[in-house]
Amino acid sequence: MTGSTASPRAATAARAAYFVSDSTGITAETLGNALLSNFPGFAFVKHTIPFVDTPEGAANVVRQIADDAAAGLDPIVFRTTKTQSVSSVLSTAPATTIDLLGGHLTELEEALGTTASEQLGQFHMLGDPTQYFARMRAVEYAIEHDDGQSSRALDIADVIIVAPSRCGKTPTTMYLALQYGLLVANYPLTDDDFPTDGLPRLVAPYASRCFGITTTPLRLSQVRHERRPDSRYASLAQCTIELRRAEDLYRRNRVPFLNSSTKSVEEMSAVILQTLRLRP
Amino acid sequence: MTGSTASPRAATAARAAYFVSDSTGITAETLGNALLSNFPGFAFVKHTIPFVDTPEGAANVVRQIADDAAAGLDPIVFRTTKTQSVSSVLSTAPATTIDLLGGHLTELEEALGTTASEQLGQFHMLGDPTQYFARMRAVEYAIEHDDGQSSRALDIADVIIVAPSRCGKTPTTMYLALQYGLLVANYPLTDDDFPTDGLPRLVAPYASRCFGITTTPLRLSQVRHERRPDSRYASLAQCTIELRRAEDLYRRNRVPFLNSSTKSVEEMSAVILQTLRLRP
Repeated sequence: MTGSTASPRAATAARAAYFVSDSTGITAETLGNALLSNFPGFAFVKHTIPFVDTPEGAANVVRQIADDAAAGLDPIVFRTTKTQSVSSVLSTAPATTIDLLGGHLTELEEALGTTASEQLGQFHMLGDPTQYFARMRAVEYAIEHDDGQSSRALDIADVIIVAPSRCGKTPTTMYLALQYGLLVANYPLTDDDFPTDGLPRLVAPYASRCFGITTTPLRLSQVRHERRPDSRYASLAQCTIELRRAEDLYRRNRVPFLNSSTKSVEEMSAVILQTLRLRP
Repeated sequence: MTGSTASPRAATAARAAYFVSDSTGITAETLGNALLSNFPGFAFVKHTIPFVDTPEGAANVVRQIADDAAAGLDPIVFRTTKTQSVSSVLSTAPATTIDLLGGHLTELEEALGTTASEQLGQFHMLGDPTQYFARMRAVEYAIEHDDGQSSRALDIADVIIVAPSRCGKTPTTMYLALQYGLLVANYPLTDDDFPTDGLPRLVAPYASRCFGITTTPLRLSQVRHERRPDSRYASLAQCTIELRRAEDLYRRNRVPFLNSSTKSVEEMSAVILQTLRLRP
Protein backbone atom coordinates (compact mmCIF):
# COMPACT_ATOMS: atom_id res chain seq x y z
CA MET A 1 0.00 0.00 0.00
CA THR A 2 2.87 2.29 0.74
CA GLY A 3 6.41 3.32 -0.14
CA SER A 4 8.62 1.96 -2.84
CA THR A 5 11.73 2.46 -0.76
CA ALA A 6 14.53 -0.05 -0.91
CA SER A 7 13.45 -3.18 0.90
CA PRO A 8 15.96 -4.99 3.07
CA ARG A 9 16.69 -7.63 0.48
CA ALA A 10 20.34 -7.99 1.32
CA ALA A 11 19.82 -9.95 4.51
CA THR A 12 16.90 -12.29 3.96
CA ALA A 13 15.15 -12.63 7.27
CA ALA A 14 13.49 -15.96 8.07
CA ARG A 15 10.02 -15.76 9.63
CA ALA A 16 7.49 -18.47 10.31
CA ALA A 17 4.05 -17.98 8.74
CA TYR A 18 1.02 -20.00 9.83
CA PHE A 19 -2.24 -20.33 7.94
CA VAL A 20 -4.74 -21.64 10.49
CA SER A 21 -8.33 -22.54 9.73
CA ASP A 22 -11.24 -24.43 11.22
CA SER A 23 -12.06 -25.55 7.68
CA THR A 24 -9.79 -26.49 4.73
CA GLY A 25 -7.31 -23.66 5.16
CA ILE A 26 -7.56 -22.74 1.50
CA THR A 27 -8.81 -19.21 2.07
CA ALA A 28 -6.18 -18.57 4.74
CA GLU A 29 -3.46 -19.96 2.48
CA THR A 30 -4.59 -18.06 -0.63
CA LEU A 31 -4.95 -14.67 1.00
CA GLY A 32 -2.03 -15.17 3.38
CA ASN A 33 0.28 -15.95 0.47
CA ALA A 34 -1.11 -12.99 -1.46
CA LEU A 35 -0.24 -10.71 1.44
CA LEU A 36 3.21 -12.18 2.07
CA SER A 37 4.17 -11.82 -1.58
CA ASN A 38 4.35 -8.08 -0.97
CA PHE A 39 7.36 -8.59 1.25
CA PRO A 40 9.99 -10.14 -1.00
CA GLY A 41 12.78 -9.37 1.46
CA PHE A 42 11.77 -12.21 3.75
CA ALA A 43 12.04 -15.99 3.62
CA PHE A 44 8.82 -17.32 5.09
CA VAL A 45 8.67 -20.83 6.51
CA LYS A 46 5.02 -21.64 5.87
CA HIS A 47 2.66 -24.01 7.65
CA THR A 48 -0.96 -24.61 6.73
CA ILE A 49 -2.97 -26.12 9.57
CA PRO A 50 -6.56 -26.93 8.55
CA PHE A 51 -9.47 -28.33 10.56
CA VAL A 52 -8.52 -26.67 13.86
CA ASP A 53 -12.00 -26.75 15.33
CA THR A 54 -11.52 -27.46 19.02
CA PRO A 55 -9.76 -25.51 21.80
CA GLU A 56 -7.47 -28.53 22.29
CA GLY A 57 -6.50 -28.47 18.61
CA ALA A 58 -5.84 -24.76 18.89
CA ALA A 59 -3.67 -25.33 21.97
CA ASN A 60 -1.50 -27.73 19.94
CA VAL A 61 -1.08 -25.08 17.27
CA VAL A 62 -0.16 -22.50 19.89
CA ARG A 63 2.55 -24.84 21.21
CA GLN A 64 3.98 -25.27 17.72
CA ILE A 65 3.97 -21.51 17.20
CA ALA A 66 5.64 -21.00 20.59
CA ASP A 67 8.40 -23.41 19.55
CA ASP A 68 9.00 -21.37 16.40
CA ALA A 69 9.00 -18.17 18.43
CA ALA A 70 11.56 -19.66 20.81
CA ALA A 71 13.67 -20.60 17.78
CA GLY A 72 13.73 -16.94 16.72
CA LEU A 73 11.34 -17.29 13.78
CA ASP A 74 9.06 -14.52 15.09
CA PRO A 75 5.85 -16.12 13.71
CA ILE A 76 3.00 -14.46 11.89
CA VAL A 77 -0.37 -16.20 12.09
CA PHE A 78 -3.10 -15.75 9.49
CA ARG A 79 -6.33 -17.17 10.76
CA THR A 80 -9.78 -17.74 9.29
CA THR A 81 -11.28 -19.42 12.35
CA LYS A 82 -14.89 -18.59 13.06
CA THR A 83 -15.24 -20.72 16.21
CA GLN A 84 -14.95 -18.28 19.10
CA SER A 85 -13.33 -20.73 21.53
CA VAL A 86 -10.69 -21.65 18.91
CA SER A 87 -9.94 -18.02 18.08
CA SER A 88 -9.52 -17.18 21.77
CA VAL A 89 -6.92 -19.89 22.27
CA LEU A 90 -5.07 -18.93 19.09
CA SER A 91 -4.86 -15.33 20.23
CA THR A 92 -2.65 -16.44 23.12
CA ALA A 93 0.12 -17.49 20.72
CA PRO A 94 3.35 -15.48 20.98
CA ALA A 95 2.94 -14.14 17.44
CA THR A 96 1.44 -11.40 15.34
CA THR A 97 -2.03 -12.69 14.52
CA ILE A 98 -3.93 -11.43 11.50
CA ASP A 99 -7.63 -12.24 11.51
CA LEU A 100 -8.59 -12.53 7.85
CA LEU A 101 -12.34 -12.89 8.43
CA GLY A 102 -13.44 -11.26 11.66
CA GLY A 103 -13.05 -7.59 10.81
CA HIS A 104 -14.62 -8.01 7.40
CA LEU A 105 -17.54 -9.95 8.86
CA THR A 106 -18.20 -7.02 11.16
CA GLU A 107 -18.09 -4.64 8.18
CA LEU A 108 -20.55 -6.89 6.35
CA GLU A 109 -22.84 -7.16 9.36
CA GLU A 110 -23.08 -3.39 9.37
CA ALA A 111 -23.64 -3.17 5.62
CA LEU A 112 -26.32 -5.85 5.66
CA GLY A 113 -27.91 -4.86 8.94
CA THR A 114 -27.88 -8.38 10.30
CA THR A 115 -25.59 -10.77 12.14
CA ALA A 116 -23.43 -13.40 10.51
CA SER A 117 -24.56 -17.00 10.72
CA GLU A 118 -22.62 -18.94 13.31
CA GLN A 119 -22.61 -22.05 11.21
CA LEU A 120 -19.23 -23.29 10.13
CA GLY A 121 -19.47 -23.60 6.46
CA GLN A 122 -17.92 -24.99 3.40
CA PHE A 123 -17.81 -21.84 1.38
CA HIS A 124 -15.42 -22.48 -1.44
CA MET A 125 -16.63 -22.43 -4.97
CA LEU A 126 -16.01 -26.14 -5.35
CA GLY A 127 -17.92 -26.80 -2.19
CA ASP A 128 -21.30 -25.99 -3.58
CA PRO A 129 -22.96 -29.42 -3.85
CA THR A 130 -25.22 -28.31 -6.67
CA GLN A 131 -22.12 -27.55 -8.73
CA TYR A 132 -20.32 -30.77 -7.85
CA PHE A 133 -21.70 -32.79 -10.73
CA ALA A 134 -21.07 -30.01 -13.22
CA ARG A 135 -17.42 -29.95 -12.19
CA MET A 136 -17.07 -33.70 -12.26
CA ARG A 137 -18.50 -33.72 -15.76
CA ALA A 138 -16.24 -30.83 -16.79
CA VAL A 139 -13.08 -32.58 -15.58
CA GLU A 140 -14.07 -35.76 -17.38
CA TYR A 141 -14.79 -33.79 -20.53
CA ALA A 142 -11.38 -32.11 -20.27
CA ILE A 143 -9.64 -35.47 -19.89
CA GLU A 144 -11.53 -36.94 -22.82
CA HIS A 145 -10.70 -33.95 -25.01
CA ASP A 146 -7.13 -33.40 -23.93
CA ASP A 147 -4.72 -32.85 -26.79
CA GLY A 148 -7.32 -33.36 -29.49
CA GLN A 149 -7.99 -36.93 -28.43
CA SER A 150 -11.69 -36.80 -29.18
CA SER A 151 -13.97 -34.88 -31.47
CA ARG A 152 -17.06 -36.20 -29.71
CA ALA A 153 -19.37 -33.47 -28.43
CA LEU A 154 -16.95 -30.73 -29.46
CA ASP A 155 -20.04 -28.70 -30.34
CA ILE A 156 -20.88 -28.28 -26.66
CA ALA A 157 -17.41 -27.03 -25.66
CA ASP A 158 -17.42 -23.67 -23.90
CA VAL A 159 -13.78 -23.15 -24.85
CA ILE A 160 -11.39 -24.85 -27.27
CA ILE A 161 -7.79 -24.04 -26.49
CA VAL A 162 -5.51 -24.36 -29.52
CA ALA A 163 -1.72 -24.22 -29.55
CA PRO A 164 1.37 -26.05 -30.78
CA SER A 165 2.47 -28.99 -28.66
CA ARG A 166 3.88 -28.14 -25.19
CA CYS A 167 2.70 -24.53 -25.03
CA GLY A 168 0.79 -25.25 -21.82
CA LYS A 169 -2.74 -26.04 -22.95
CA THR A 170 -3.48 -28.75 -20.42
CA PRO A 171 -3.08 -27.04 -17.02
CA THR A 172 -5.22 -24.08 -18.07
CA THR A 173 -7.82 -26.43 -19.53
CA MET A 174 -8.00 -28.35 -16.30
CA TYR A 175 -8.14 -25.23 -14.14
CA LEU A 176 -11.10 -23.84 -16.11
CA ALA A 177 -12.89 -27.18 -15.83
CA LEU A 178 -12.27 -27.71 -12.15
CA GLN A 179 -12.72 -24.15 -10.92
CA TYR A 180 -15.54 -22.99 -13.15
CA GLY A 181 -17.17 -26.21 -14.38
CA LEU A 182 -16.64 -25.19 -18.00
CA LEU A 183 -16.43 -27.72 -20.80
CA VAL A 184 -12.96 -27.16 -22.21
CA ALA A 185 -11.33 -29.06 -25.04
CA ASN A 186 -7.79 -28.51 -26.20
CA TYR A 187 -6.40 -29.12 -29.63
CA PRO A 188 -2.80 -29.31 -30.78
CA LEU A 189 -1.63 -27.42 -33.87
CA THR A 190 0.72 -29.64 -35.80
CA ASP A 191 2.69 -29.18 -38.99
CA ASP A 192 -0.25 -30.75 -40.80
CA ASP A 193 -2.39 -27.77 -39.92
CA PHE A 194 -0.22 -25.19 -41.58
CA PRO A 195 -0.41 -25.65 -45.32
CA THR A 196 -3.84 -24.02 -45.07
CA ASP A 197 -4.86 -20.61 -43.79
CA GLY A 198 -7.79 -21.87 -41.77
CA LEU A 199 -8.17 -23.46 -38.38
CA PRO A 200 -7.92 -27.25 -38.20
CA ARG A 201 -10.97 -28.86 -39.77
CA LEU A 202 -12.37 -30.25 -36.51
CA VAL A 203 -12.33 -26.99 -34.60
CA ALA A 204 -13.04 -24.59 -37.49
CA PRO A 205 -16.82 -24.70 -36.99
CA TYR A 206 -16.32 -23.39 -33.45
CA ALA A 207 -13.87 -20.56 -34.17
CA SER A 208 -15.72 -18.15 -31.90
CA ARG A 209 -15.01 -20.40 -28.94
CA CYS A 210 -11.34 -20.93 -29.75
CA PHE A 211 -8.56 -19.36 -27.73
CA GLY A 212 -4.90 -19.61 -28.79
CA ILE A 213 -1.78 -19.97 -26.70
CA THR A 214 1.69 -18.97 -27.72
CA THR A 215 4.99 -18.81 -25.83
CA THR A 216 8.57 -17.83 -26.52
CA PRO A 217 10.63 -20.07 -28.84
CA LEU A 218 13.28 -20.48 -26.14
CA ARG A 219 10.83 -21.63 -23.50
CA LEU A 220 9.06 -23.96 -25.91
CA SER A 221 12.38 -25.45 -26.93
CA GLN A 222 13.32 -26.04 -23.30
CA VAL A 223 10.02 -27.75 -22.53
CA ARG A 224 10.25 -29.91 -25.63
CA HIS A 225 13.85 -30.91 -24.85
CA GLU A 226 12.56 -32.45 -21.63
CA ARG A 227 10.28 -34.70 -23.62
CA ARG A 228 12.51 -35.43 -26.62
CA PRO A 229 16.05 -34.25 -26.03
CA ASP A 230 17.99 -33.06 -29.07
CA SER A 231 15.17 -33.73 -31.51
CA ARG A 232 14.19 -31.58 -34.45
CA TYR A 233 10.85 -31.19 -32.62
CA ALA A 234 12.68 -29.49 -29.75
CA SER A 235 15.05 -27.38 -31.85
CA LEU A 236 14.89 -23.64 -31.49
CA ALA A 237 14.43 -23.29 -35.27
CA GLN A 238 11.42 -25.60 -35.34
CA CYS A 239 9.86 -23.95 -32.29
CA THR A 240 10.34 -20.49 -33.81
CA ILE A 241 8.62 -21.55 -37.04
CA GLU A 242 5.71 -23.28 -35.31
CA LEU A 243 5.01 -20.35 -33.00
CA ARG A 244 5.16 -17.83 -35.86
CA ARG A 245 2.75 -19.95 -37.91
CA ALA A 246 0.42 -20.39 -34.96
CA GLU A 247 0.30 -16.67 -34.23
CA ASP A 248 -0.38 -15.96 -37.92
CA LEU A 249 -3.18 -18.50 -37.81
CA TYR A 250 -4.71 -16.92 -34.71
CA ARG A 251 -4.60 -13.46 -36.26
CA ARG A 252 -6.00 -14.55 -39.62
CA ASN A 253 -8.90 -16.32 -37.93
CA ARG A 254 -9.45 -13.66 -35.27
CA VAL A 255 -8.74 -16.15 -32.52
CA PRO A 256 -7.71 -14.25 -29.38
CA PHE A 257 -4.46 -15.52 -27.92
CA LEU A 258 -2.07 -15.14 -25.00
CA ASN A 259 1.59 -15.75 -24.32
CA SER A 260 1.82 -18.36 -21.58
CA SER A 261 5.48 -17.69 -20.78
CA THR A 262 4.70 -14.70 -18.59
CA LYS A 263 1.32 -15.72 -17.23
CA SER A 264 0.19 -18.02 -14.49
CA VAL A 265 -2.51 -20.61 -15.04
CA GLU A 266 -4.91 -18.40 -13.08
CA GLU A 267 -4.10 -15.33 -15.13
CA MET A 268 -4.56 -17.24 -18.38
CA SER A 269 -7.88 -18.57 -17.11
CA ALA A 270 -9.06 -15.14 -15.98
CA VAL A 271 -8.22 -13.61 -19.37
CA ILE A 272 -9.96 -16.44 -21.24
CA LEU A 273 -13.10 -16.08 -19.11
CA GLN A 274 -13.16 -12.37 -19.76
CA THR A 275 -12.34 -12.47 -23.46
CA LEU A 276 -14.90 -15.15 -24.28
CA ARG A 277 -17.41 -13.58 -21.85
CA LEU A 278 -17.75 -16.76 -19.84
CA ARG A 279 -17.94 -15.17 -16.41
CA PRO A 280 -21.15 -16.12 -14.68
CA MET B 1 -18.66 -13.54 14.38
CA THR B 2 -21.71 -12.94 16.46
CA GLY B 3 -25.23 -14.00 17.36
CA SER B 4 -27.11 -17.04 16.26
CA THR B 5 -30.37 -15.16 16.27
CA ALA B 6 -32.91 -15.90 13.59
CA SER B 7 -31.69 -14.44 10.31
CA PRO B 8 -34.18 -12.69 8.04
CA ARG B 9 -34.51 -15.68 5.74
CA ALA B 10 -38.16 -15.16 5.04
CA ALA B 11 -37.76 -12.25 2.67
CA THR B 12 -34.64 -12.91 0.58
CA ALA B 13 -33.06 -9.55 -0.11
CA ALA B 14 -31.21 -9.10 -3.40
CA ARG B 15 -27.90 -7.27 -3.19
CA ALA B 16 -25.17 -6.77 -5.77
CA ALA B 17 -21.69 -8.01 -4.83
CA TYR B 18 -18.60 -6.97 -6.76
CA PHE B 19 -15.19 -8.64 -6.58
CA VAL B 20 -12.80 -6.11 -8.07
CA SER B 21 -9.09 -6.73 -8.59
CA ASP B 22 -6.14 -5.29 -10.48
CA SER B 23 -5.01 -8.89 -10.99
CA THR B 24 -6.98 -12.10 -11.65
CA GLY B 25 -9.70 -11.47 -9.09
CA ILE B 26 -9.30 -14.93 -7.64
CA THR B 27 -8.37 -13.77 -4.15
CA ALA B 28 -11.22 -11.24 -4.10
CA GLU B 29 -13.65 -13.88 -5.34
CA THR B 30 -12.49 -16.61 -2.93
CA LEU B 31 -12.50 -14.49 0.20
CA GLY B 32 -15.53 -12.43 -0.83
CA ASN B 33 -17.56 -15.60 -1.35
CA ALA B 34 -16.30 -16.98 1.95
CA LEU B 35 -17.54 -13.86 3.71
CA LEU B 36 -20.88 -13.71 1.93
CA SER B 37 -21.62 -17.34 2.75
CA ASN B 38 -22.14 -16.23 6.33
CA PHE B 39 -25.27 -14.33 5.31
CA PRO B 40 -27.62 -16.97 3.93
CA GLY B 41 -30.59 -14.64 4.15
CA PHE B 42 -29.52 -12.70 1.06
CA ALA B 43 -29.48 -13.40 -2.66
CA PHE B 44 -26.26 -11.89 -3.96
CA VAL B 45 -25.92 -10.98 -7.63
CA LYS B 46 -22.19 -11.43 -8.07
CA HIS B 47 -19.77 -9.82 -10.51
CA THR B 48 -16.06 -10.54 -10.71
CA ILE B 49 -14.12 -7.79 -12.48
CA PRO B 50 -10.43 -8.64 -12.88
CA PHE B 51 -7.55 -6.62 -14.34
CA VAL B 52 -8.85 -3.20 -13.25
CA ASP B 53 -5.47 -1.48 -13.30
CA THR B 54 -6.14 2.04 -14.58
CA PRO B 55 -8.24 4.92 -13.19
CA GLU B 56 -10.29 4.79 -16.41
CA GLY B 57 -11.01 1.11 -15.88
CA ALA B 58 -12.00 1.85 -12.31
CA ALA B 59 -14.32 4.63 -13.46
CA ASN B 60 -16.14 2.12 -15.69
CA VAL B 61 -16.59 -0.18 -12.72
CA VAL B 62 -17.89 2.71 -10.61
CA ARG B 63 -20.49 3.47 -13.30
CA GLN B 64 -21.64 -0.16 -13.32
CA ILE B 65 -21.89 -0.13 -9.53
CA ALA B 66 -23.83 3.14 -9.64
CA ASP B 67 -26.32 1.57 -12.06
CA ASP B 68 -26.87 -1.29 -9.63
CA ALA B 69 -27.26 1.17 -6.77
CA ALA B 70 -29.84 3.10 -8.78
CA ALA B 71 -31.65 -0.18 -9.40
CA GLY B 72 -31.93 -0.73 -5.66
CA LEU B 73 -29.33 -3.49 -5.39
CA ASP B 74 -27.38 -1.63 -2.69
CA PRO B 75 -23.97 -2.96 -3.84
CA ILE B 76 -21.16 -4.32 -1.73
CA VAL B 77 -17.67 -4.11 -3.24
CA PHE B 78 -14.83 -6.41 -2.23
CA ARG B 79 -11.57 -5.10 -3.60
CA THR B 80 -8.01 -6.36 -3.71
CA THR B 81 -6.58 -3.47 -5.71
CA LYS B 82 -3.10 -2.38 -4.76
CA THR B 83 -2.81 0.48 -7.27
CA GLN B 84 -3.47 3.66 -5.30
CA SER B 85 -5.05 5.58 -8.20
CA VAL B 86 -7.42 2.68 -8.90
CA SER B 87 -8.40 2.30 -5.25
CA SER B 88 -9.12 6.04 -5.00
CA VAL B 89 -11.52 5.95 -7.92
CA LEU B 90 -13.24 2.79 -6.63
CA SER B 91 -13.82 4.41 -3.26
CA THR B 92 -16.10 6.96 -4.95
CA ALA B 93 -18.61 4.20 -5.81
CA PRO B 94 -22.02 4.48 -4.10
CA ALA B 95 -21.47 1.23 -2.22
CA THR B 96 -20.06 -0.35 0.89
CA THR B 97 -16.45 -1.09 -0.03
CA ILE B 98 -14.48 -3.74 1.81
CA ASP B 99 -10.74 -3.58 1.25
CA LEU B 100 -9.51 -7.15 1.56
CA LEU B 101 -5.80 -6.33 1.38
CA GLY B 102 -5.05 -2.83 2.60
CA GLY B 103 -5.65 -3.17 6.31
CA HIS B 104 -3.84 -6.48 6.49
CA LEU B 105 -0.89 -5.08 4.57
CA THR B 106 -0.61 -2.35 7.16
CA GLU B 107 -0.70 -4.96 9.93
CA LEU B 108 2.04 -6.89 8.14
CA GLU B 109 4.14 -3.79 7.58
CA GLU B 110 4.08 -3.23 11.31
CA ALA B 111 4.88 -6.85 12.12
CA LEU B 112 7.75 -6.98 9.63
CA GLY B 113 9.04 -3.47 10.24
CA THR B 114 9.18 -2.61 6.57
CA THR B 115 6.96 -1.31 3.80
CA ALA B 116 5.12 -3.46 1.29
CA SER B 117 6.51 -3.68 -2.20
CA GLU B 118 4.56 -1.55 -4.65
CA GLN B 119 4.93 -4.07 -7.39
CA LEU B 120 1.74 -5.59 -8.65
CA GLY B 121 2.27 -9.22 -8.40
CA GLN B 122 1.11 -12.57 -9.40
CA PHE B 123 0.89 -14.11 -6.00
CA HIS B 124 -1.23 -17.17 -6.39
CA MET B 125 0.23 -20.54 -5.76
CA LEU B 126 -0.04 -21.52 -9.39
CA GLY B 127 1.67 -18.29 -10.37
CA ASP B 128 5.06 -19.27 -9.08
CA PRO B 129 7.02 -19.89 -12.29
CA THR B 130 9.36 -22.34 -10.59
CA GLN B 131 6.35 -24.50 -9.77
CA TYR B 132 4.77 -24.25 -13.20
CA PHE B 133 6.52 -27.26 -14.67
CA ALA B 134 5.85 -29.39 -11.62
CA ARG B 135 2.15 -28.67 -11.96
CA MET B 136 2.11 -29.30 -15.69
CA ARG B 137 3.81 -32.63 -15.09
CA ALA B 138 1.39 -33.44 -12.26
CA VAL B 139 -1.69 -32.76 -14.39
CA GLU B 140 -0.30 -34.88 -17.19
CA TYR B 141 0.48 -37.66 -14.74
CA ALA B 142 -3.08 -37.46 -13.38
CA ILE B 143 -4.55 -37.70 -16.87
CA GLU B 144 -2.34 -40.65 -17.76
CA HIS B 145 -3.25 -42.46 -14.56
CA ASP B 146 -6.93 -41.62 -14.43
CA ASP B 147 -9.15 -44.58 -13.65
CA GLY B 148 -6.31 -47.09 -13.59
CA GLN B 149 -5.44 -46.47 -17.20
CA SER B 150 -1.72 -46.88 -16.71
CA SER B 151 0.55 -48.68 -14.32
CA ARG B 152 3.62 -46.86 -15.64
CA ALA B 153 5.58 -45.03 -12.96
CA LEU B 154 3.03 -45.88 -10.29
CA ASP B 155 5.98 -46.21 -7.93
CA ILE B 156 6.51 -42.44 -7.99
CA ALA B 157 2.88 -41.56 -7.15
CA ASP B 158 2.48 -39.37 -4.09
CA VAL B 159 -1.11 -40.55 -3.71
CA ILE B 160 -3.16 -43.37 -5.20
CA ILE B 161 -6.87 -42.80 -4.78
CA VAL B 162 -8.87 -46.02 -4.82
CA ALA B 163 -12.65 -46.37 -4.96
CA PRO B 164 -15.48 -48.08 -6.80
CA SER B 165 -16.47 -46.49 -10.10
CA ARG B 166 -18.20 -43.06 -9.86
CA CYS B 167 -17.35 -42.31 -6.23
CA GLY B 168 -15.63 -39.08 -7.25
CA LYS B 169 -11.97 -40.01 -7.63
CA THR B 170 -11.20 -37.82 -10.63
CA PRO B 171 -12.00 -34.26 -9.46
CA THR B 172 -10.05 -34.70 -6.23
CA THR B 173 -7.15 -36.26 -8.16
CA MET B 174 -7.04 -33.28 -10.49
CA TYR B 175 -7.34 -30.73 -7.72
CA LEU B 176 -4.37 -32.23 -5.85
CA ALA B 177 -2.32 -32.27 -9.05
CA LEU B 178 -3.16 -28.75 -10.14
CA GLN B 179 -3.11 -27.01 -6.79
CA TYR B 180 -0.25 -28.82 -5.11
CA GLY B 181 1.75 -30.34 -7.97
CA LEU B 182 1.39 -33.82 -6.49
CA LEU B 183 1.60 -36.96 -8.59
CA VAL B 184 -1.79 -38.57 -8.09
CA ALA B 185 -3.05 -41.77 -9.68
CA ASN B 186 -6.51 -43.13 -9.23
CA TYR B 187 -7.58 -46.72 -9.45
CA PRO B 188 -11.06 -48.19 -9.72
CA LEU B 189 -12.14 -51.07 -7.51
CA THR B 190 -14.16 -53.51 -9.59
CA ASP B 191 -15.90 -56.77 -8.83
CA ASP B 192 -12.70 -58.50 -9.89
CA ASP B 193 -10.90 -57.03 -6.91
CA PHE B 194 -13.17 -58.49 -4.31
CA PRO B 195 -12.67 -62.22 -4.24
CA THR B 196 -9.41 -61.50 -2.38
CA ASP B 197 -8.77 -59.66 0.87
CA GLY B 198 -5.90 -57.59 -0.44
CA LEU B 199 -5.65 -54.42 -2.47
CA PRO B 200 -5.60 -54.78 -6.25
CA ARG B 201 -2.32 -56.29 -7.39
CA LEU B 202 -1.05 -53.16 -9.13
CA VAL B 203 -1.50 -50.83 -6.20
CA ALA B 204 -0.80 -53.28 -3.36
CA PRO B 205 2.94 -52.50 -3.25
CA TYR B 206 2.07 -48.86 -2.51
CA ALA B 207 -0.55 -49.39 0.19
CA SER B 208 0.91 -46.66 2.38
CA ARG B 209 0.19 -44.11 -0.31
CA CYS B 210 -3.35 -45.28 -0.99
CA PHE B 211 -6.40 -43.31 0.07
CA GLY B 212 -9.92 -44.69 -0.28
CA ILE B 213 -13.15 -42.96 -1.17
CA THR B 214 -16.61 -44.11 -0.29
CA THR B 215 -20.02 -42.52 -0.63
CA THR B 216 -23.62 -43.37 0.17
CA PRO B 217 -25.31 -46.14 -1.86
CA LEU B 218 -28.10 -43.76 -2.84
CA ARG B 219 -25.77 -41.10 -4.17
CA LEU B 220 -23.63 -43.65 -6.01
CA SER B 221 -26.74 -45.16 -7.56
CA GLN B 222 -27.89 -41.72 -8.73
CA VAL B 223 -24.52 -40.91 -10.31
CA ARG B 224 -24.35 -44.30 -12.01
CA HIS B 225 -27.87 -43.96 -13.36
CA GLU B 226 -26.70 -40.90 -15.24
CA ARG B 227 -24.10 -42.98 -17.01
CA ARG B 228 -26.04 -46.23 -17.46
CA PRO B 229 -29.72 -45.78 -16.67
CA ASP B 230 -31.51 -48.77 -15.18
CA SER B 231 -28.47 -51.04 -15.30
CA ARG B 232 -27.44 -53.58 -12.69
CA TYR B 233 -24.31 -51.42 -12.31
CA ALA B 234 -26.49 -48.51 -11.17
CA SER B 235 -28.86 -50.50 -8.98
CA LEU B 236 -29.03 -49.64 -5.30
CA ALA B 237 -28.33 -53.29 -4.41
CA GLN B 238 -25.13 -53.40 -6.45
CA CYS B 239 -23.96 -50.01 -5.13
CA THR B 240 -24.60 -51.09 -1.55
CA ILE B 241 -22.58 -54.28 -2.01
CA GLU B 242 -19.67 -52.54 -3.74
CA LEU B 243 -19.40 -49.82 -1.13
CA ARG B 244 -19.54 -52.31 1.73
CA ARG B 245 -16.84 -54.42 0.13
CA ALA B 246 -14.70 -51.35 -0.56
CA GLU B 247 -14.94 -50.13 3.02
CA ASP B 248 -14.07 -53.60 4.28
CA LEU B 249 -11.07 -53.61 1.97
CA TYR B 250 -9.90 -50.20 3.21
CA ARG B 251 -10.20 -51.27 6.84
CA ARG B 252 -8.47 -54.60 6.34
CA ASN B 253 -5.57 -52.93 4.57
CA ARG B 254 -5.44 -49.91 6.85
CA VAL B 255 -6.13 -47.59 3.95
CA PRO B 256 -7.55 -44.30 5.27
CA PHE B 257 -10.79 -43.32 3.59
CA LEU B 258 -13.40 -40.60 3.37
CA ASN B 259 -17.04 -40.32 2.42
CA SER B 260 -17.25 -37.99 -0.57
CA SER B 261 -21.01 -37.43 -0.30
CA THR B 262 -20.66 -34.79 2.40
CA LYS B 263 -17.32 -33.27 1.44
CA SER B 264 -16.22 -30.79 -1.16
CA VAL B 265 -13.28 -31.46 -3.43
CA GLU B 266 -11.21 -29.01 -1.37
CA GLU B 267 -12.13 -30.68 1.89
CA MET B 268 -11.27 -34.12 0.51
CA SER B 269 -7.95 -32.77 -0.73
CA ALA B 270 -7.14 -31.07 2.56
CA VAL B 271 -7.86 -34.27 4.50
CA ILE B 272 -5.75 -36.37 2.11
CA LEU B 273 -2.82 -33.95 2.39
CA GLN B 274 -3.00 -34.06 6.14
CA THR B 275 -3.56 -37.80 6.52
CA LEU B 276 -0.71 -38.77 4.18
CA ARG B 277 1.45 -35.94 5.56
CA LEU B 278 1.91 -34.36 2.16
CA ARG B 279 1.71 -30.74 3.22
CA PRO B 280 4.84 -28.92 2.21
